Amino acid sequence: MQSTRPLKVLAPALTPFHADLSVNRPAFIAFCRWLVAQGAGLAVFGTNSEANSLSLPEKIELLEALVDAGIPASAMVPGTGLCSVPETVALTRRAVELGCAGALVLPPFYFKPATDDGLFAHYAQVIEAVGSERLKLYLYHIPQFTGVPISCTLIERLLKAYPGTVAGIKDSSGDWANTERMLREFPGFEVFPASEALLEKALPLGAAGCISATANVQPGAIAQALQAWGTPGFEALQAQLKGVRSLFQAHPMIPALKHVVARAFGDEGWRHVRPPFVPADAAWAEGLCAQLTQAGFRMERP
Amino acid sequence: MQSTRPLKVLAPALTPFHADLSVNRPAFIAFCRWLVAQGAGLAVFGTNSEANSLSLPEKIELLEALVDAGIPASAMVPGTGLCSVPETVALTRRAVELGCAGALVLPPFYFKPATDDGLFAHYAQVIEAVGSERLKLYLYHIPQFTGVPISCTLIERLLKAYPGTVAGIKDSSGDWANTERMLREFPGFEVFPASEALLEKALPLGAAGCISATANVQPGAIAQALQAWGTPGFEALQAQLKGVRSLFQAHPMIPALKHVVARAFGDEGWRHVRPPFVPADAAWAEGLCAQLTQAGFRMERP
Repeated sequence: MQSTRPLKVLAPALTPFHADLSVNRPAFIAFCRWLVAQGAGLAVFGTNSEANSLSLPEKIELLEALVDAGIPASAMVPGTGLCSVPETVALTRRAVELGCAGALVLPPFYFKPATDDGLFAHYAQVIEAVGSERLKLYLYHIPQFTGVPISCTLIERLLKAYPGTVAGIKDSSGDWANTERMLREFPGFEVFPASEALLEKALPLGAAGCISATANVQPGAIAQALQAWGTPGFEALQAQLKGVRSLFQAHPMIPALKHVVARAFGDEGWRHVRPPFVPADAAWAEGLCAQLTQAGFRMERP
Repeated sequence: MQSTRPLKVLAPALTPFHADLSVNRPAFIAFCRWLVAQGAGLAVFGTNSEANSLSLPEKIELLEALVDAGIPASAMVPGTGLCSVPETVALTRRAVELGCAGALVLPPFYFKPATDDGLFAHYAQVIEAVGSERLKLYLYHIPQFTGVPISCTLIERLLKAYPGTVAGIKDSSGDWANTERMLREFPGFEVFPASEALLEKALPLGAAGCISATANVQPGAIAQALQAWGTPGFEALQAQLKGVRSLFQAHPMIPALKHVVARAFGDEGWRHVRPPFVPADAAWAEGLCAQLTQAGFRMERP
């Protein structure tokens, strides 16, 4: 089923750090502005934003800084899911107050195995504590990091209890059968695969677009492919996206992305990562840059 | 190798909640006071404290409340390990300022697989930011929840870089070969198995005692067994501890412990849990209580 919504690409925006690993706020704002100018929305505080290496106050301050800088909150779907209900509520509520288009909410990811009853209770408490009709909540299924999968049974319960609030899901499982099942079972529910390489399979089934790590480096190309969906030009654009994506996937994603951004923008500071990550090793990272150039990839400096 | 330190039992103290799931602070203080009176130390904010369902401000306030209530900080080894360096530093620093005997520090548990280089950087940044010679840091190895194991190679690096600060480890892996290896490889390093059922195997190798979920319900009996270590009375005490422990292990641990505490203390409010947990089902929980009574188990009301 083809959706009538405009197709979206959202970038889990990378978070730049100073040498002392404090957040480089001006660089973050400039990068987010560039992503939006390229046609991407901002899933700030996603996995590839190193969100779980940021403190809650850091996240709230950065979100406020983006809005203060004039970047439209309507382009933002920040990651707001933390392990505890009170902290998830605090960040989600602030996102709603600031006018964000939605909130991408991880399940509580420490205790496992979690039951559907327990996860339902978690999301229900968050939704009821935020208590706003403006909340559009996107579930975040990334079991390889959380150890806490979001089942179709849970989605069904949440959709029944909170229609109009539970708006969609990011499926980062890499399990196409799961993505396909959600697309078929929940028409109208916004399903975002976590890779632009899946657009050709997901869009015919009604996917909402994609939320992808590599949207940090090829946002414009993904936006262009989404616009070309249904036209003869789509296939070549999809092939180009897949080629670039596959080059990144051979490496630790966050250090690789940050290295490429550092090179493209001529700012070595972009290479800083917080632990538990370590910066890209120069040897493989320069090899990646060479491969990308050969594949016709280029980023435009903001 | 037999240690000359006094053997310790530490309880990851359960956290009581009101019906609205806010923390019941008076009940928490009373429970911690009871644990200490029974001879246990306080590993507050451990896994079985539902620590990762509490916010950072809630944890800081509870720690301060315990100290304000006159419970000796020298009995406390709070769990202070969160996903981000800044939040881990904030809680660990407060624990040190309050005079806590140590801090039990989870690795950052979202991103996986983590490398030893990345985990070393995380712990190093925490230790250096706290910047106190009074910090005694205990690593927390619980890979079934974190997905991030703490290897012997990492321990060795940390011990070399921060001798006197990196003081020990809680091994909750349930993998005896791992516990044994750490006990043999790092003499003087305080290794705590996560179950009183392992005392008979761990104490001969120099274990420091145990940090155990079921120390919430049989703290006095564990303390008594530790005192009896090396005497003919130990064997019977160990058998009794193992019997009680095994009854709990057949059920979801936190709801089971809270149900038993509720019954023992005559306070139904103890049954409340935060999501992703759900309260104990009355049917199995009452069965557990019956089995415990039959096994000669009793808790003394504080």
